Amino acid sequence: TLGSINTQGLKGDFLRSPSGGAAGPLLTPSQSLDGSRRSGYITIGYRGSYTIGRDAQADAKFRRVARITVCGKTSLAKEVFGDTLNESRDPDRPPERYTSRYYLKFNFLEQAFDKLSESGFHMVACSSTGTCAFASSTDQSEDKIWTSYTEYVFCRE
Amino acid sequence: TLGSINTQGLKGDFLRSPSGGAAGPLLTPSQSLDGSRRSGYITIGYRGSYTIGRDAQADAKFRRVARITVCGKTSLAKEVFGDTLNESRDPDRPPERYTSRYYLKFNFLEQAFDKLSESGFHMVACSSTGTCAFASSTDQSEDKIWTSYTEYVFCRE
Amino acid sequence: TLGSINTQGLKGDFLRSPSGGAAGPLLTPSQSLDGSRRSGYITIGYRGSYTIGRDAQADAKFRRVARITVCGKTSLAKEVFGDTLNESRDPDRPPERYTSRYYLKFNFLEQAFDKLSESGFHMVACSSTGTCAFASSTDQSEDKIWTSYTEYVFCRE
Amino acid sequence: TLGSINTQGLKGDFLRSPSGGAAGPLLTPSQSLDGSRRSGYITIGYRGSYTIGRDAQADAKFRRVARITVCGKTSLAKEVFGDTLNESRDPDRPPERYTSRYYLKFNFLEQAFDKLSESGFHMVACSSTGTCAFASSTDQSEDKIWTSYTEYVFCRE
Amino acid sequence: TLGSINTQGLKGDFLRSPSGGAAGPLLTPSQSLDGSRRSGYITIGYRGSYTIGRDAQADAKFRRVARITVCGKTSLAKEVFGDTLNESRDPDRPPERYTSRYYLKFNFLEQAFDKLSESGFHMVACSSTGTCAFASSTDQSEDKIWTSYTEYVFCRE
Repeated sequence: TLGSINTQGLKGDFLRSPSGGAAGPLLTPSQSLDGSRRSGYITIGYRGSYTIGRDAQADAKFRRVARITVCGKTSLAKEVFGDTLNESRDPDRPPERYTSRYYLKFNFLEQAFDKLSESGFHMVACSSTGTCAFASSTDQSEDKIWTSYTEYVFCRE
Repeated sequence: TLGSINTQGLKGDFLRSPSGGAAGPLLTPSQSLDGSRRSGYITIGYRGSYTIGRDAQADAKFRRVARITVCGKTSLAKEVFGDTLNESRDPDRPPERYTSRYYLKFNFLEQAFDKLSESGFHMVACSSTGTCAFASSTDQSEDKIWTSYTEYVFCRE
Repeated sequence: TLGSINTQGLKGDFLRSPSGGAAGPLLTPSQSLDGSRRSGYITIGYRGSYTIGRDAQADAKFRRVARITVCGKTSLAKEVFGDTLNESRDPDRPPERYTSRYYLKFNFLEQAFDKLSESGFHMVACSSTGTCAFASSTDQSEDKIWTSYTEYVFCRE
Repeated sequence: TLGSINTQGLKGDFLRSPSGGAAGPLLTPSQSLDGSRRSGYITIGYRGSYTIGRDAQADAKFRRVARITVCGKTSLAKEVFGDTLNESRDPDRPPERYTSRYYLKFNFLEQAFDKLSESGFHMVACSSTGTCAFASSTDQSEDKIWTSYTEYVFCRE
Repeated sequence: TLGSINTQGLKGDFLRSPSGGAAGPLLTPSQSLDGSRRSGYITIGYRGSYTIGRDAQADAKFRRVARITVCGKTSLAKEVFGDTLNESRDPDRPPERYTSRYYLKFNFLEQAFDKLSESGFHMVACSSTGTCAFASSTDQSEDKIWTSYTEYVFCRE
């Protein structure tokens, strides 16, 4: 998207070396061009699904992440995730508005954490909720499925 | 409300520039007029609802926030959220009293986080509980619904 | 109770101004008379109840706190909460013993947080568990009820 | 046990006053004799049980802790908890090995927290899971019971 | 594996004493050879299982960890866990790629925490979800089983 391309260009061309690399420690990628640090919160979330059944113990039961969602101010999300951000579910959102309908083009949570860390964010909290959805009683051969929603709150001060 | 208008005016007119902008770093919006910092806790919460069904995997399952509740001392809540605070469920509450019945006029959690951050609060913890409410057994075509309650605790020291 | 009255007097009369207000920053309310800081943990908890039913979406679903419990060393609990502490369920407990059966005379969590903060404690973690208790199947008109237990751990170092 | 007695003696006789009280701030109880700090993690856990029934609202529902378990390196657990540690479920474990089968002889979580704090550990996180176990459908007079598992992670750096 | 052997050699031979022990405080094991610190997130998780039944209260109910999973950048996971890392479920993964299918050859969580701490990581958050899987209704003598998924997020800055 144009937004993410602009943000990427802003980070690479202007912020990191505004005058030939003499930026110094005062102008990091987490700062805006006029020197004022754009603080804020970004929340990363995903819905996990697990199968509980006969072979549940036999399998390693690794974490499965279907989609990583991004919530927060749109300008911050674009700055952090650039062209790895999918904005198709909330397009043309003004930079100062908030969204809870962005998601990422990759599915590794730690990759999202690392990108947030590179932009000056740190994790402040995470929480998780779980529930179970039983299979229909007419088909008892089916394994039970339960899902969870986990979110990680990041902050840049 | 009058309370939030006063608080807003207080922040904008007195605290940020009490003597023509020469306030310096010692008089931030998180301080009272007499220079004593008003410390305290504010808790933000919401009840999330999710649908578990046949097309659960097909949809992106973004976070849905119906209402953001605010708990804490009324004067702190008014200072932070100003006229974005809905006090209709606990009106005419004295400033030094506590409430758990305020809520916000917007539904983006990160917007609430950012407002708290601007007022000098930082998130110290969050927790989440989940449960499931099955649809009635006579109507098996209906999807199952489960809800959660998540809260975020903020502190200003 | 005598214990809480004594503690309150201790804080107000001796600790805050042991020699006419010249205590300085080294003798805060979180210190004992001999200058040794009494460190420790206090845990605040409550059981929340929620109703899931037809009008669940219609109501604002504010947090309902029936009773705030206090766990930890009795002397610390008395120092922090004073005469707002109900010791009737664990009376005559020696100061150096631990209890998990004190509770508060008020029901606002943030009021408890603020009192802990004023005594030098800060929140280090919180956790929450949830479950659901279905209504009996013979009375399907009744709404479902679920409860949770949430606790907040505070520490003074 | 011999292990915990040795550890206790070590703390009291050698570490706290290796040369007549002139240890200085560099030799705290959280350090070993050769001056190298023994860092590490210890996890405290318990399974809580709650009853959901007709008189659930009538009772105060205080936290009930049946047994506090200790997980981590055996030498660290012995150093912190001394003779209040029950090693009967994992006896004769070498000091550098790990265990998840120690438990405490007392049932107050905050007492365990305080002991950990005295040895230089601080809580870094806690988490909790809950579930419910329904009573058998043939006996509907029985109250429902649910259990939870909560753990508190401590670290010494 | 070759990757973990190389990483281990790197840590032991080069980083800790690159020029005869004169490394100084600027070249810790958490730094790469060219002096740039490799920051990042690693998530540790496990699925716990518990049995709820007649003798549930009789047993001590210690934590049971079947398998500790590792998520994050493959190079970081190899650096921290070396040859205690099982990469068989995601072999031949390039160093800069992410994985969620590594697991450890040991089953003590605190051992994993300590290894992460030795490499400069600290725990920033943990979360836990729980659910229950009922036994089949035709066999009511069977105890109920429930499982949980708990994860611990570590960061190196």
